[in-house]
Amino acid sequence: MNPENLRIVLVDTRNPLNIGAAARAISNFGFRHLRLVNPYNVAYLEAKSAVNAAEILTNAQEYQTLREAIADCSLVVGTTAIGHRELQHPLRRLEYAGMVLRRHLASGNVALLFGSEKFGLSNEEMSYCHWLLRIGTRDEHASMNLGQAVAVCLYELSRKKAVRAPESKQLAGAQDLDRMTDRLVEVLRESGYVHSSSTEAKTRRLVRRLNLPAHDAEVWLGMLRQIQWKLKQKPDGILNQ
Amino acid sequence: MNPENLRIVLVDTRNPLNIGAAARAISNFGFRHLRLVNPYNVAYLEAKSAVNAAEILTNAQEYQTLREAIADCSLVVGTTAIGHRELQHPLRRLEYAGMVLRRHLASGNVALLFGSEKFGLSNEEMSYCHWLLRIGTRDEHASMNLGQAVAVCLYELSRKKAVRAPESKQLAGAQDLDRMTDRLVEVLRESGYVHSSSTEAKTRRLVRRLNLPAHDAEVWLGMLRQIQWKLKQKPDGILNQ
Repeated sequence: MNPENLRIVLVDTRNPLNIGAAARAISNFGFRHLRLVNPYNVAYLEAKSAVNAAEILTNAQEYQTLREAIADCSLVVGTTAIGHRELQHPLRRLEYAGMVLRRHLASGNVALLFGSEKFGLSNEEMSYCHWLLRIGTRDEHASMNLGQAVAVCLYELSRKKAVRAPESKQLAGAQDLDRMTDRLVEVLRESGYVHSSSTEAKTRRLVRRLNLPAHDAEVWLGMLRQIQWKLKQKPDGILNQ
Repeated sequence: MNPENLRIVLVDTRNPLNIGAAARAISNFGFRHLRLVNPYNVAYLEAKSAVNAAEILTNAQEYQTLREAIADCSLVVGTTAIGHRELQHPLRRLEYAGMVLRRHLASGNVALLFGSEKFGLSNEEMSYCHWLLRIGTRDEHASMNLGQAVAVCLYELSRKKAVRAPESKQLAGAQDLDRMTDRLVEVLRESGYVHSSSTEAKTRRLVRRLNLPAHDAEVWLGMLRQIQWKLKQKPDGILNQ
């Protein structure tokens, strides 16, 4: 996928905050091209929520018509929350649509269209689309905030396959765990906690279940040593009083 | 995953619009529980961007401390854009974190924490977390708008595996395509377009590449018939003038 090839096209947007939010998401996810068709408020450059997205807003291009805004795109996809209109287009969920878009973005320009906050894309505007996508919101409340919808779509486009991060923490070895178990059993014995002969095995399992990083095992061992020292000191302490 | 088990916890949020936006995303993606720790502006119930999310806002619970807000959760995960602080926690990308969270949400309560707009989560707040997650934004502009970050996280949690939607359109059969090809060749011949004997095969391939739905093939055939009729009428028309 080449992020240079994506044009995010906002049609008839009324709220400049939403234009700013869209610009911010475009910048967050490493895309570049924002196009505005007939924006309601031309003061969109002042959009306040667009922290650090000034470059995207400055380079945003304004068009009078949708036809002009998408002229250089070989794939045009509209977003919709469906609603009550009967759609005349193939409709794909974002999860699958993202795959198709990424493939196309490798070599061709894609326009991703977002309609006005109140009405979404009109039928006329949809007729310029090859197909439509929807975000999997629940039917009872399908319509998303414009800036949030843009962010979710761009997240999906730049999403990577979930990979389990390599275990960064080095787990404590058996020897460390044994030293800790031994010390803990001693402390428990000296505290009068140990009542049965099975305590040692129980404690060993308890310590294993902690899944301790090597560094933390050292810290615990230090704590136990100090506690044990104090436990042994106590009679003297009392004598000293 | 049981969406009932998720608590979205906003800590020290300053802008009521962001609380409203978070509530809207919670409603969009079918979650329920919004918790606010020490919100800056208690007038959050008026949050305007929370279209249709009134129920989430009405039921939102307010806490003085983070400790109270997460008391019933067995997994506490903080969100971060990293920044310059050295993190003391395991950090997972949202794609992988989502898998772990979904698994935990099947049986246990999860708190997902979002820090203030300006500073994110403090080190003190992070110390309540089991681990942290980050959304895969670009390093040069990692920090997302709060409402957008909430939406992206909840999208990932409710994300479904990409499944190719069953082909909804019935493609035109070979017979339909042949009828259309024949008619088109006739029209081209009558228009004087056909020059070589290879035109018919070329046209047949051209029509095949259209990948026409059955219904559309009918429409094209009707158009061609009408054009052919008009082409034949023309001499009479001229005579009638």
